[in-house]
Amino acid sequence: MYWTKTLIPTLKESPQEAESLSHKLMLRAGLIRMLMSGSYMYLPLGLRILNNIQAIIRQEMRSTGAAELLLPALQPLELWQRTGRDETIGEVMIRFVDRRGRKVCLGPTHEEVITELIRTHVSSYKQLPVVVYQIQTKFRDEMRPRFGIVRACEFIMKDAYSFDRDQAGLEKNYRAMHEAYTRIFQRCGLDCLALEADSGVMGGKVSHEFMVPCESGEDAAFRCLACKKAVSFTEGNEPLCPACSTPMKKINVLEVGHIFQLGTKYTAALGAHFIDQAGKQQPIIMGCYGIGVSRLIAAIIEQNNDDSGIVWPKEVAPYQVEIVPLDVADSHLMQEATRIHDGLDAAGIGVLMDDRDERAGVKFKDAELIGVPLIVVLGKKNLEQGKIEVKTRADKKVTLVEKGEVAGFLKNSL
Amino acid sequence: MYWTKTLIPTLKESPQEAESLSHKLMLRAGLIRMLMSGSYMYLPLGLRILNNIQAIIRQEMRSTGAAELLLPALQPLELWQRTGRDETIGEVMIRFVDRRGRKVCLGPTHEEVITELIRTHVSSYKQLPVVVYQIQTKFRDEMRPRFGIVRACEFIMKDAYSFDRDQAGLEKNYRAMHEAYTRIFQRCGLDCLALEADSGVMGGKVSHEFMVPCESGEDAAFRCLACKKAVSFTEGNEPLCPACSTPMKKINVLEVGHIFQLGTKYTAALGAHFIDQAGKQQPIIMGCYGIGVSRLIAAIIEQNNDDSGIVWPKEVAPYQVEIVPLDVADSHLMQEATRIHDGLDAAGIGVLMDDRDERAGVKFKDAELIGVPLIVVLGKKNLEQGKIEVKTRADKKVTLVEKGEVAGFLKNSL
Repeated sequence: MYWTKTLIPTLKESPQEAESLSHKLMLRAGLIRMLMSGSYMYLPLGLRILNNIQAIIRQEMRSTGAAELLLPALQPLELWQRTGRDETIGEVMIRFVDRRGRKVCLGPTHEEVITELIRTHVSSYKQLPVVVYQIQTKFRDEMRPRFGIVRACEFIMKDAYSFDRDQAGLEKNYRAMHEAYTRIFQRCGLDCLALEADSGVMGGKVSHEFMVPCESGEDAAFRCLACKKAVSFTEGNEPLCPACSTPMKKINVLEVGHIFQLGTKYTAALGAHFIDQAGKQQPIIMGCYGIGVSRLIAAIIEQNNDDSGIVWPKEVAPYQVEIVPLDVADSHLMQEATRIHDGLDAAGIGVLMDDRDERAGVKFKDAELIGVPLIVVLGKKNLEQGKIEVKTRADKKVTLVEKGEVAGFLKNSL
Repeated sequence: MYWTKTLIPTLKESPQEAESLSHKLMLRAGLIRMLMSGSYMYLPLGLRILNNIQAIIRQEMRSTGAAELLLPALQPLELWQRTGRDETIGEVMIRFVDRRGRKVCLGPTHEEVITELIRTHVSSYKQLPVVVYQIQTKFRDEMRPRFGIVRACEFIMKDAYSFDRDQAGLEKNYRAMHEAYTRIFQRCGLDCLALEADSGVMGGKVSHEFMVPCESGEDAAFRCLACKKAVSFTEGNEPLCPACSTPMKKINVLEVGHIFQLGTKYTAALGAHFIDQAGKQQPIIMGCYGIGVSRLIAAIIEQNNDDSGIVWPKEVAPYQVEIVPLDVADSHLMQEATRIHDGLDAAGIGVLMDDRDERAGVKFKDAELIGVPLIVVLGKKNLEQGKIEVKTRADKKVTLVEKGEVAGFLKNSL
């Protein structure tokens, strides 16, 4: 992809609206733009990152055996009245009356809808377990949208749901999801804590939150400086570490995932029953498993940056390689740059060519700001000696590589 | 994928709600379920088809040089007031006032939003053209939702937008999009007409509609029985063919795409200007290009079916191969079925195994109903003679293949 053919409006300065480090960097690197408070546009670079995160999630969800489906945002309010959540969830749920007089809401989550679907299609223990998930856009009427896409009125979630015959089945699916979450966050380059949590308005007894330590995190946790064990904030004030009795430190954390053993709260309320092996009717045992997909971008940036900008983990990076020709008017240099670009592109490696007619300093700064892992710099002097410069974004290490060996060097570095 | 691990609730009979052939088949084949009138759930099979269509669209959009981005559904009503469309679009646009008193609407389309984005980032002719697209969920408060996903209140669109310095640039992008649309609909297995059309509420002068002839189409066109030329219904009543003067026949058509040369309607209203080469300020010249993505599923089914069910075109099919072991209790037979399944899966070929403990007749009927192109039937008698049956869904032709040659036979048939 050529820089001038896409839309990457980088900014030298942080806009006033930016409240946190990740918010600033997402605006400056041209990943997102605000349409109105709480409502964001994903520009091409931001969308590529979003898609990479979704690809990781899909791969790990498939490994748990979950099937993907897609549920609508428009839901009948009546379903929420039947579980009592139209009241407990409060005004954060967007509601309206449509032209035909129907009471409609925009789904902030989908427990009711998926339970209704399962109710109509599962009747026997032979059909259980069922595990499904979706990656879908949710809506919330936030009083105080904050930190860009972190607390927005429209956001993307991965929500999975398991339906089992018994508690043992639920626990098995819960463990599988817990393990998948650990792999997902690792592949996203995150140091992430799994903490026992309160189930709150969701219901059920057992629940874990996945928390990313970072300065702008809106939640708090305690972490042991000695053994790294962490506990949630609700468990007490500045306790000693339950593992090694060392004093713990209070840290800010950002929630990126939450899993719940719901039990029968929704299935009993909505009548999602099955006939067990003994011929007896039972409510289906349910679990639900959420990841804040769009919010993950912010979490990754909070933990992967330096003074120059973002440092993308390999699997999430919008491109793997950025090519920076120092003089776009030099046809020999551009020919060489195009050759490398097309070679990588044909090999399926994500490559961005900064073909803007800009000063070298501007291009270098933007390359470090948007944080592509490998930066290939083509300058006249080096090229005359048959050399090309390759910079690794993470450690800013520069290597002079023989012209003919660049493609191989890049592939080995990825 | 194993049938019992996913959710494919096929139906023997058409539900009462079904109004058209495609609607009936989508419900019967377990692709979708209604949550409420106009709001649909995509079950795993339906979502796979949707994803295949999106992959075709993305590939062809990339070939036009368009960059993908993602715009929000939540939009400030104020933007629509500035173009006057808050009134012309009428009550079909869903509006509400949020908790902070802001007037918000759910985007039925995105001309205003994308123009606002371009306004803030483009100032010089050097930055033009810009061509962007998104695949995103739109909302409409339909008085009469019909034909399942064809006329729904929530649906998926591909909307592309071009921004040019001059009319010549617009016409070039318009032609490129027109050609991409032709390729997209061909790859979807559609006989599709491109008709000159009225621009209506969108504005601009030149516009083409892409129409799929089918019984349940809500629009009408005239088609020449001799030379196949088609014209839109608005051009007159039962004209003679403008190409060969033969009488034309009135047919029902379903709109799947619409492209517009908008000109400066939106850019002038919202102040999206650029400085041209002579240093003069000009409004940017705009085009927009829509495809009804979710609706395409219905259009494809309307044109690709027989008495037994759906006949998916190769690139759209939810799976390429379905394996039907006649007796799931026969371990030798299941071993062979699993070997074929795993081999195809490892080769990246979409394969579905009907591992349900059901009668052969039920499985055969369901296989033909959901319409996977190749059906592999494993029966005890054939297998004892080292043979496996392969049926081609489209022509129902059955071939007995040597056990060891099945994988090769299937790959050659795809």
